[in-house]
Amino acid sequence: MSKILVFGHQNPDTDAIASAIGFSYLAKQKFNLNTEAVSLGQSNEETKYALAFFNIELPRVIKSAASEGVDTVILTDHNEFQQSISDINELNIWGVVDHHRIANFTTANPLFFRSEPVGSSSSIVARMFKENQVEIPKEIAGILISAIISDTLLFKSPTTHKTDQTIAQSLAKIAKIDLKTYGLSLLKAGINLTSKSEKELINLDAKTFLLNEKSVRVAQVNTVDINEVLTRQEILEKAMKIENEQNGYSDFILMITDILNSNSEILVAGENNDKIEAAFDVKLKNNHAFLKGVVSRKKQIIPQLTI
Amino acid sequence: MSKILVFGHQNPDTDAIASAIGFSYLAKQKFNLNTEAVSLGQSNEETKYALAFFNIELPRVIKSAASEGVDTVILTDHNEFQQSISDINELNIWGVVDHHRIANFTTANPLFFRSEPVGSSSSIVARMFKENQVEIPKEIAGILISAIISDTLLFKSPTTHKTDQTIAQSLAKIAKIDLKTYGLSLLKAGINLTSKSEKELINLDAKTFLLNEKSVRVAQVNTVDINEVLTRQEILEKAMKIENEQNGYSDFILMITDILNSNSEILVAGENNDKIEAAFDVKLKNNHAFLKGVVSRKKQIIPQLTI
Repeated sequence: MSKILVFGHQNPDTDAIASAIGFSYLAKQKFNLNTEAVSLGQSNEETKYALAFFNIELPRVIKSAASEGVDTVILTDHNEFQQSISDINELNIWGVVDHHRIANFTTANPLFFRSEPVGSSSSIVARMFKENQVEIPKEIAGILISAIISDTLLFKSPTTHKTDQTIAQSLAKIAKIDLKTYGLSLLKAGINLTSKSEKELINLDAKTFLLNEKSVRVAQVNTVDINEVLTRQEILEKAMKIENEQNGYSDFILMITDILNSNSEILVAGENNDKIEAAFDVKLKNNHAFLKGVVSRKKQIIPQLTI
Repeated sequence: MSKILVFGHQNPDTDAIASAIGFSYLAKQKFNLNTEAVSLGQSNEETKYALAFFNIELPRVIKSAASEGVDTVILTDHNEFQQSISDINELNIWGVVDHHRIANFTTANPLFFRSEPVGSSSSIVARMFKENQVEIPKEIAGILISAIISDTLLFKSPTTHKTDQTIAQSLAKIAKIDLKTYGLSLLKAGINLTSKSEKELINLDAKTFLLNEKSVRVAQVNTVDINEVLTRQEILEKAMKIENEQNGYSDFILMITDILNSNSEILVAGENNDKIEAAFDVKLKNNHAFLKGVVSRKKQIIPQLTI
């Protein structure tokens, strides 16, 4: 049987990697598919910490399906084509497992598509193991729970669904970890910002959205000290403007998220500051503004910009 | 809690009605939603037969969500906006259960979306009862199994998935019917073509598709005698041309499907006969052609026209 590649979005976060690894394993057991979990970019520090902790190899980074001789793929943790593999338009999509809005996604044939408005794609993958009565190996439970912790900021994000907690608790038993202790270590592993250049920071967890026919880039960095990141504002803005020019983004929005207090500062560069102010009912001062209680790009940034 | 309307596509077939009734019931039990199953058009003869057989009331026909004072909906058996309720662009979509290609569908927020490439949306709904350990009442089992029979032409269509048969067998037990006896009666109830005008025939089960930016109408009628339908060709063609003019379709394709021998004759009216000939590798004679083994619009007509 031909190989099917399974991968999360570009600029993978822990959920993109974990959901691909988890669903690839499940699809082998349940649907008898010849799957391989791969990645569309380097794993970040948090993901590397989780993979190392549970003794899982880093997935291979691939550039296109064609260069792998593959014509069928499975997408996890995304569906929008501009966030996917470069040659997505030429491929068969066997299936999708996701927890984001659906947009810029189209197929010629019916397919497997599973999306739920829950905290992470890995929560859905974990539930599917249960539904299909497939046993979850310890290391798979470990990487899935890492993704749930990462996406929900240890259940503090408003994207958290009540089922995420119960699923995480059952995964914690299989993975043999203490949820809170491991969770805090994992989140801290992701906050090593000082070692990164401004260009790296704004690309660490960045996604492109088509909003009112404009291409808008929204990036997020987690921190325990917003002001520390803001000391680098000037160079960050320069880097954001270069990205806009090189990629045709109308706007670049950087969310600097305080994961301890669950707030974000947004720093913006682009053409539509007035619309951004209106969308969040704030006044930008020196191109940035504080958004109280905002930590979720998906739930608290993108829908507001869509209207 | 505000009411949520649940409905299948325009020109509802049995699966559109059954999946809405089934999922509406399940959503009440499982997600505690205040749902009502409704319909975007009159039920056809086959559906009426099934509803009467299992003693279920015909769902109300509605025109728009706004006129019902409702802002949130659930779609079953379709996702493409042009096949949905008139004001779909202004509504919140809570969820979708479907088994078709995904296209012309977009949301601002994450949602529940469940699609599988199986024979009918009602198969998926039936499986979800099981997954969520909700008991299926006799009449719901009856309408769900009717939809599976209808969509798979009693398991003869190439859209049939192996799980459709096992699900149908377990539903048959709950509904207390003999699958084959009831199935043939149901399919025959849908083939009362002589009593229908040509205009009614071409609208009985018709859907609009955006193919290469053109609006194409594809209708299907089931029969046990293709030639009997073709005796009405002249008036059928006139009616198809009027539909094209009034609705801006570039092409109208009528599938006349022989459900006993599993073949179709297509009768076409429009601008792109050459492309239709190329897509199916046939020569149209007097605007019609025989497609051996073709019975599924979804699997054997639309993908071929998409390339």
